[in-house]
Amino acid sequence: MLEQAIESLRTYCRLDPSRPVVVGVSGGPDSLCLMDMLQSAGYTVIVAHFDHQLRPESTSEAQAVEKMVARRNLVCAVESADVRGVAEQEGRSIEEAARLMRYRFLFAQARRYNAQAVAVGHTADDQVETVLMHFLRGAGLAGLKGMSYRTLLPSFDAGIPVVRPLLDVWREETVVYCAAHSLHPHFDPSNTSLNFFRNRLRHVLIPSLESYNPRFREVVWRSARALAGDYEALNSVVEDAWRECLLEEGSGFISFDACSVAAQPDGVQRLLIRQAIKQLRSDLRDANFAASQRALDVIANANNTTVVDLVGGLRLFREGQRIYVADARAGLPTAGWPQMPMSPLKIVIPAWLDLGGGWEVKVDAVTLEAGEQEQAIHNGDPFTAWFDAASLPGPLCLRAPLPGDRIQPLGMDGHSIKLSDLFVNAKIPRRARENWPLLCSGDTVIWVVGFRVAHATRIIPETRQAVRVGLSCAPVHPDS
Amino acid sequence: MLEQAIESLRTYCRLDPSRPVVVGVSGGPDSLCLMDMLQSAGYTVIVAHFDHQLRPESTSEAQAVEKMVARRNLVCAVESADVRGVAEQEGRSIEEAARLMRYRFLFAQARRYNAQAVAVGHTADDQVETVLMHFLRGAGLAGLKGMSYRTLLPSFDAGIPVVRPLLDVWREETVVYCAAHSLHPHFDPSNTSLNFFRNRLRHVLIPSLESYNPRFREVVWRSARALAGDYEALNSVVEDAWRECLLEEGSGFISFDACSVAAQPDGVQRLLIRQAIKQLRSDLRDANFAASQRALDVIANANNTTVVDLVGGLRLFREGQRIYVADARAGLPTAGWPQMPMSPLKIVIPAWLDLGGGWEVKVDAVTLEAGEQEQAIHNGDPFTAWFDAASLPGPLCLRAPLPGDRIQPLGMDGHSIKLSDLFVNAKIPRRARENWPLLCSGDTVIWVVGFRVAHATRIIPETRQAVRVGLSCAPVHPDS
Repeated sequence: MLEQAIESLRTYCRLDPSRPVVVGVSGGPDSLCLMDMLQSAGYTVIVAHFDHQLRPESTSEAQAVEKMVARRNLVCAVESADVRGVAEQEGRSIEEAARLMRYRFLFAQARRYNAQAVAVGHTADDQVETVLMHFLRGAGLAGLKGMSYRTLLPSFDAGIPVVRPLLDVWREETVVYCAAHSLHPHFDPSNTSLNFFRNRLRHVLIPSLESYNPRFREVVWRSARALAGDYEALNSVVEDAWRECLLEEGSGFISFDACSVAAQPDGVQRLLIRQAIKQLRSDLRDANFAASQRALDVIANANNTTVVDLVGGLRLFREGQRIYVADARAGLPTAGWPQMPMSPLKIVIPAWLDLGGGWEVKVDAVTLEAGEQEQAIHNGDPFTAWFDAASLPGPLCLRAPLPGDRIQPLGMDGHSIKLSDLFVNAKIPRRARENWPLLCSGDTVIWVVGFRVAHATRIIPETRQAVRVGLSCAPVHPDS
Repeated sequence: MLEQAIESLRTYCRLDPSRPVVVGVSGGPDSLCLMDMLQSAGYTVIVAHFDHQLRPESTSEAQAVEKMVARRNLVCAVESADVRGVAEQEGRSIEEAARLMRYRFLFAQARRYNAQAVAVGHTADDQVETVLMHFLRGAGLAGLKGMSYRTLLPSFDAGIPVVRPLLDVWREETVVYCAAHSLHPHFDPSNTSLNFFRNRLRHVLIPSLESYNPRFREVVWRSARALAGDYEALNSVVEDAWRECLLEEGSGFISFDACSVAAQPDGVQRLLIRQAIKQLRSDLRDANFAASQRALDVIANANNTTVVDLVGGLRLFREGQRIYVADARAGLPTAGWPQMPMSPLKIVIPAWLDLGGGWEVKVDAVTLEAGEQEQAIHNGDPFTAWFDAASLPGPLCLRAPLPGDRIQPLGMDGHSIKLSDLFVNAKIPRRARENWPLLCSGDTVIWVVGFRVAHATRIIPETRQAVRVGLSCAPVHPDS
């Protein structure tokens, strides 16, 4: 047993023999065994004992631990607190308050002594109980995988991990170890009273489950080990895919690059959606299968403009090259489109206007030579427009759309169309329409920026003086 | 309930309303509910009833099912067999024999009627019992995810799936459904006797677990659903990675492309190793963490020549650009290296020799012009060697190494070295050394093919008549 646990110290717990370790010692067989084992393996051990003051004998037990530690020439830190009082004051259960206060103390000692880790004596039995508790309460992989040999508890310390070197040692083995190494554990009677639920599992349910399978504890322990591997694999896959696909994390929304998501295996796409839901909703609910299936269809198909209701008011939809998972009420970013600032912008040629979000509009006067008119008309760039200066009915300005705005587009025989229809046909999302920049001459809309120019002010073969308007976008990095 | 289950028919079970379905009908509430629901939803239902002859009343029950089906104008197939007798004869448990014979019958009917699927009435309760059974017996994700809405059972039929549309309907709901739809199920008393283990779970353990969590059944059902998603994701990731990384699956070994494996996330590398172990050993044991950690080091580091003991006699090691997971006794392929056929090959210039595995040796005579000697000496291609014809001590041949073989390599001042040392330095694996081709002139080794030529027969500035020997490999696809 000792060899196996010492192997765990290095490989699973990743402990460095040259740096001190704080060991939480209750005085029971598990923690005494852990302390002794670490010391035998050559680690610098700092013993930390927390007196919960929950039983009359706790003070004398704390003193016994101090004496024992002194005999071994180890550093010992003891703290005593009225857990019951704090629990009542903070409205917590006694178990919860006890755990919080004990871990706070342990990590405070770890920081004080510059220790590499806090080691605790959780055994294989504790692992089985934890997994069973998660199973009974309903848990995903994260719960069923049980406790880890080494893990960070960021609410206690962002850098010092808790390690559990005895996770593959059974409780009874620690009792035998103590007997064999002249350690004298006390058997905390609170084990049978403090944590009722866990103790019912330990003393009633697990023995009963062993009547269904005598090897119950062993198989659950093994399952947890295998699930921990699955969990780690899934996590690493999702982390990789997330990094690859994420465009933006905003308030109430997450956006992915559509192509990158589509390139992932189906299962990973589902995990990304689940992760996005988790991030936006923080509880563990998952979208139902039918919804995720529709979501995958949206991801796979650039022409699928369905808005998929995922779960809890979250929706998944596509906007161009972006896949959004978003709260129905989230203010989505409009960085992907040119948008007007608050007020209209007057244009005095030559002009260079900054719309924000990296979008710029440049306006200049150009004299066309014979034959250049044709080229200007069919310039092929939706973001560059040419106008016949002589036909412009008034001064130029850029403004946001007003209700009822219409345009008579080039080549439509003088028919005018509603701007709203134009936006719908072009699949511009509603929220981007409100501030879409329009180029006006006097009261007339002569260009819905990025779309067709107006018929009346078009370049004609006779045009000599032209106005050229160009829209450009210097991409703004989502992180900036 | 009906709506939800009908939604399941399409989305989860992927049933096509235009093609018939065989429904396994025991006559209990689950299967009657399923039959009625499928019929109401417009499916062409073929009822199949298997009489296990395990109870005296089974024959009359079968007749009752037949009558009821006839009244509904459905096709009905009934088969009766002495399950107990077969079980005894084949040394199976009665439950096992019953399941085998029943499914054989159901799939035979599906093939007979060209049905798209066999539908069975497993309910949400059956799902919870299944998951609990797996939990008690020790299971990974594949067990804890429970039964699937649609799955292939290849031992019964390679193409027709079994579907379970009632997986999200509780047993009690099917009872209520039957009452509401004037269906008269019989309650099979074998439910309390046939499958002892499952019935103990149903009637004793689950009610007891509900005293730990009154929502036990619901949370287990939900966990299974979430784990099914994880399982699917992991599977799709592993399948993708497997396809990307696999080079060869041989008897007792699997080889991966080292670069492709190294490019996967750590968790996926672990899954690939686990999958390889599973494929080679078929049981579910996984390598321990320390061994997989060493395995990942071998994968990450091209200079790491450690042979890692994984589990059950399987080892992982690197050979050049290949990562092997192999049984210690497996005959690994030597396709990556030139190998001699059984007997030596005499060479009469010009010669063209086929060594097998795509490897070829070409030998020809070349007359060198002044100045070409230098080029021949430093030709830079390890697979082409030049010799001074006048210095050759005897006729040429290709043969495998003999014990004690030595060579005096070019540029080593006439020192001779053992072939075995040369192979070790060059990291040629032992099994490839035995038949490595040597070019000999008389009794002298003048070229260890692919390495340096012998000093005595080298090209010198005075060489006019040279012999050129070239080794080439037309890659043989591993599948061919």
